[in-house]
Amino acid sequence: MRIARIAHPEGMCFALVEGEGNEVTLKEIEGHPFGQLNKTGRQWPLSDVRLLAPMLPSKVIAIGRNYADHVAEVFKKSAESLPPTMFIKPPTAVIGPEAPIRIPDFATNVEFEGELALIIGKPCKNVKKEDAHDVIFGYTIVNDVSSRDLQFADGQWARAKGIDTFCPLGPWIQTELDYNELPIKAHLTHEGTTETKQDSNSNQMIMSIPEIIEFITASITLLPGDVICTGSPAGTAAMFPGDRIEIEIPGIGRLANPVERA
Amino acid sequence: MRIARIAHPEGMCFALVEGEGNEVTLKEIEGHPFGQLNKTGRQWPLSDVRLLAPMLPSKVIAIGRNYADHVAEVFKKSAESLPPTMFIKPPTAVIGPEAPIRIPDFATNVEFEGELALIIGKPCKNVKKEDAHDVIFGYTIVNDVSSRDLQFADGQWARAKGIDTFCPLGPWIQTELDYNELPIKAHLTHEGTTETKQDSNSNQMIMSIPEIIEFITASITLLPGDVICTGSPAGTAAMFPGDRIEIEIPGIGRLANPVERA
Repeated sequence: MRIARIAHPEGMCFALVEGEGNEVTLKEIEGHPFGQLNKTGRQWPLSDVRLLAPMLPSKVIAIGRNYADHVAEVFKKSAESLPPTMFIKPPTAVIGPEAPIRIPDFATNVEFEGELALIIGKPCKNVKKEDAHDVIFGYTIVNDVSSRDLQFADGQWARAKGIDTFCPLGPWIQTELDYNELPIKAHLTHEGTTETKQDSNSNQMIMSIPEIIEFITASITLLPGDVICTGSPAGTAAMFPGDRIEIEIPGIGRLANPVERA
Repeated sequence: MRIARIAHPEGMCFALVEGEGNEVTLKEIEGHPFGQLNKTGRQWPLSDVRLLAPMLPSKVIAIGRNYADHVAEVFKKSAESLPPTMFIKPPTAVIGPEAPIRIPDFATNVEFEGELALIIGKPCKNVKKEDAHDVIFGYTIVNDVSSRDLQFADGQWARAKGIDTFCPLGPWIQTELDYNELPIKAHLTHEGTTETKQDSNSNQMIMSIPEIIEFITASITLLPGDVICTGSPAGTAAMFPGDRIEIEIPGIGRLANPVERA
């Protein structure tokens, strides 16, 4: 099941996503999607709505350094010497599909990071990895946009990765997904030419998804709608105003955003 | 004016704090405190209510390394070589006065950090320092509880400082405060003996409060109720289950919390 959050001609709502390609229909549901899903009967074709970030989370918790090849490219070190770590992106950074990533002047060397994201479905604490799937509502795509220069200058990553618009999320939540062998790709369009920059697989994660849930909830209570970013594989690269970045995860879809100067 | 959030015999509300010492009265106001303040007419003596965290923020943004003596004691470096930096504490870490700080087994060397906190009053972005006071609703006390061992092991501070209960906030919001020469003290009670561990002054801040607002809002939109932690002076020290930690800032009050094993 796929669930989107949409702006339609009369307002905003959560909606079931049915159909494929040019035949996608958004069927409005009552309220939020965490309980019983009841359709209201209203529906629109995809072309008549705007997809919003599929969730407005109370918090976005991210795992960094979760793919060895990305640790090597960014930190020039082995994953053994720099294990996965946790950081937080502010909710104000979240944007939806096609909303522009806006780069301020002082944020130089701004790179995309295509990642699989988890949407939490229940309030939870101290979840054991064998119970992790009980608290996951679904899966979506996140682009953990990062100013590499600020990241290294600040030491802490909150600013480099927390700038408004630096957390594109979408296009929708997929509630059923076999994430163990999932291709993760990033396609960057620069001056009219599109190149596939990231081409990896979720099977390269160092800390697995159940381990991530256990690790985070040993410290922090998660709430319904909270977003967990599972880390970026190698291939991240700089984006410039005028570019377009598209993250693709088969089984979920594509998350595309233009890049602008703030 | 002082504004608290309280649990009273019939529910929860924001309330004006009037009187001093044993004569404090809490006067309920309608709704939230950001607009016109209207008293409902209901009131209680302080002894009949429980003070809650004075705000449930959408985000807590903190400035680290903002006092040279604390940079020296924790990082063994000069403030010139390690300038102020930004990090984020999750909203789930926030607790109110007298709520226990609960330390899990894996969080070792857990220290208090007494700090002046700002409460934001308006949605804002790109605020210049000369306009910073327009967006500050008031001031309170925060204890930026930190596991020093996790902080250094992780590199990123989100987990060390983001554990549930690691953000005591209160006792209330003071809306008028001359913060330029404000004593900041921490009194730790351990095995029946109370020692003053932090005894500093806000005039030792490296990045001033208007500069902090300009720095953060160059990147991040702030929303009403968001909390800004302005950094800790020297004197931080380890706390253990059974201890009691009290942060004192004259003009605001005292924020005290017991320490327990999680």
